[in-house]
Amino acid sequence: MSKKTIIGVDVGGTFVKFGLFLEDGSLLEKWQAATDQTEPDAVLRRIKQESERAMQKSGMTGREVLGIGIGVPGSVDGHGMVISAPNLGWSMVNIEKLAKEYFCVPVSVANDANAAALGEQFFGSGEGCDSMVFVTLGTGVGGGVIVNGRLLAGAFGGAGEIGHMLMNEQETRACTCGKCGCLEQYASARGIAEMAKEKLASTNQKTILRSLDVITAKEVFDAIREKDSVAVELGEMFGKMLGRALSYMASAADPQMFVIGGGMSAAGDVLLEYVEKYYRQYAFAPSKRTPFLLARLGNDAGIFGAARMVQLEHV
Amino acid sequence: MSKKTIIGVDVGGTFVKFGLFLEDGSLLEKWQAATDQTEPDAVLRRIKQESERAMQKSGMTGREVLGIGIGVPGSVDGHGMVISAPNLGWSMVNIEKLAKEYFCVPVSVANDANAAALGEQFFGSGEGCDSMVFVTLGTGVGGGVIVNGRLLAGAFGGAGEIGHMLMNEQETRACTCGKCGCLEQYASARGIAEMAKEKLASTNQKTILRSLDVITAKEVFDAIREKDSVAVELGEMFGKMLGRALSYMASAADPQMFVIGGGMSAAGDVLLEYVEKYYRQYAFAPSKRTPFLLARLGNDAGIFGAARMVQLEHV
Repeated sequence: MSKKTIIGVDVGGTFVKFGLFLEDGSLLEKWQAATDQTEPDAVLRRIKQESERAMQKSGMTGREVLGIGIGVPGSVDGHGMVISAPNLGWSMVNIEKLAKEYFCVPVSVANDANAAALGEQFFGSGEGCDSMVFVTLGTGVGGGVIVNGRLLAGAFGGAGEIGHMLMNEQETRACTCGKCGCLEQYASARGIAEMAKEKLASTNQKTILRSLDVITAKEVFDAIREKDSVAVELGEMFGKMLGRALSYMASAADPQMFVIGGGMSAAGDVLLEYVEKYYRQYAFAPSKRTPFLLARLGNDAGIFGAARMVQLEHV
Repeated sequence: MSKKTIIGVDVGGTFVKFGLFLEDGSLLEKWQAATDQTEPDAVLRRIKQESERAMQKSGMTGREVLGIGIGVPGSVDGHGMVISAPNLGWSMVNIEKLAKEYFCVPVSVANDANAAALGEQFFGSGEGCDSMVFVTLGTGVGGGVIVNGRLLAGAFGGAGEIGHMLMNEQETRACTCGKCGCLEQYASARGIAEMAKEKLASTNQKTILRSLDVITAKEVFDAIREKDSVAVELGEMFGKMLGRALSYMASAADPQMFVIGGGMSAAGDVLLEYVEKYYRQYAFAPSKRTPFLLARLGNDAGIFGAARMVQLEHV
């Protein structure tokens, strides 16, 4: 009997990523397309076209599609309702319901970072683990909490929304969410770049960073490796904030492991070092030794997780 | 056919509370006994004697006992291992395993605040809800996280250990756990009493509290009702700390509701007011309107939750 297929989709503000999988989770093909239109109907139409094209190209036409998993950059409740996805301009869109007009197979929807968490848990660094907190450090900070091998969506789509934990009441700069002092302002690539700019403006200390035209998180971590003292201060601030935030995640869910992904995780061990150092200082005794791992699936975590969502419901 | 029974036990440092339930969760009898001996074997022996006595007294001898649920004041993993229960002097005691020498029925063990959470979720204020964060404000601060109608124990027995979230890095006073600045130092009855003492020593402000021989959390909340400005400042500090901690719980688990129990919750609406005010300020958009409820089962939450643990496994 020929295996069924699964379509995994990761909708971003710039690109939509696609994966064509077999029901056992093996990836046949992956590709991406520019997110030119962001209305819910346009996105679903695009997913339909792309899926059909890929099925044809891979000689899979006629194979039964088990389901379609979709990750979206916004808060999604446990019933397929996208409560808000600012980058797409969506608000209160029940995408699972809407999808019924386009597909005759079941569609599962989750927050993109939540989907990535599920991808890493099942196909990546968390393989074989049952509970995990995943953090993605990119332009922003996202996350996902896995318990008993399943995603926590939360009652209002807010589970794993680690980026907007209010970490610093003294902060005067505003976060994109409107509050001041969110984790994202210290632990995202954008946050670190901004902290670096502020630091340089406020000190005369000698630093490699001053000679750069544009400072990104990558340069900061490179400079930390060179023992640049200004960069080390930035790394300490990053580690303190993320380490403390993750100690709170442990007080809630006490996972088997933490997995750190997203573009910034390319900085590797030096990044983990700062987070772990402060996490172990802040965490309560039972969770003090929880291991930290780097994510393994890179940009594919989202499509793998979307496929896993379908597996969990239908395999 | 006559119904089976369940024994629910809540082991405290001072008293052991017992409940004899029918399998549907109705309480037949409750009673308590002094915790005179705290060795694991002595506690289990006591549970055995008390259960047999109660079964006899209630004319239940001969009825099948479905199981025994036990809440203990310490961290317990998902496999019945008590990792540490300082008030009982227990460390790495597998109480479920040990119980097999005393009982021929299954024994389920959980942290006492976790058990209380389950009690409130199923028989108390959380009736009918699926996910909940429970906080118990007593001498210390404990908690429990319910997801999909079940307790989160956590990989290392640390889930719901809200009392030792490190809320204030500037704190110089030490918590019982050794760290400085834990939630418990601002949100427990002991913590509020200590804050009051410090405050009185550092100010000359007129306050009702100064005339009291001993200040407890109760007097502080009574004084808040009288609009005593020093008491209001203490209430603000309490609300800020607990409100922020619960906003972190929402970032992790995004529950349907928060339920506040423990002795201090007798202060009622005025207490909720301070917590809610700051919670709504700190929480990320999707979880901003999560309802807050007062617990309903009082000191019985633990035995009800212990009975519920047995139900979940065997009914």
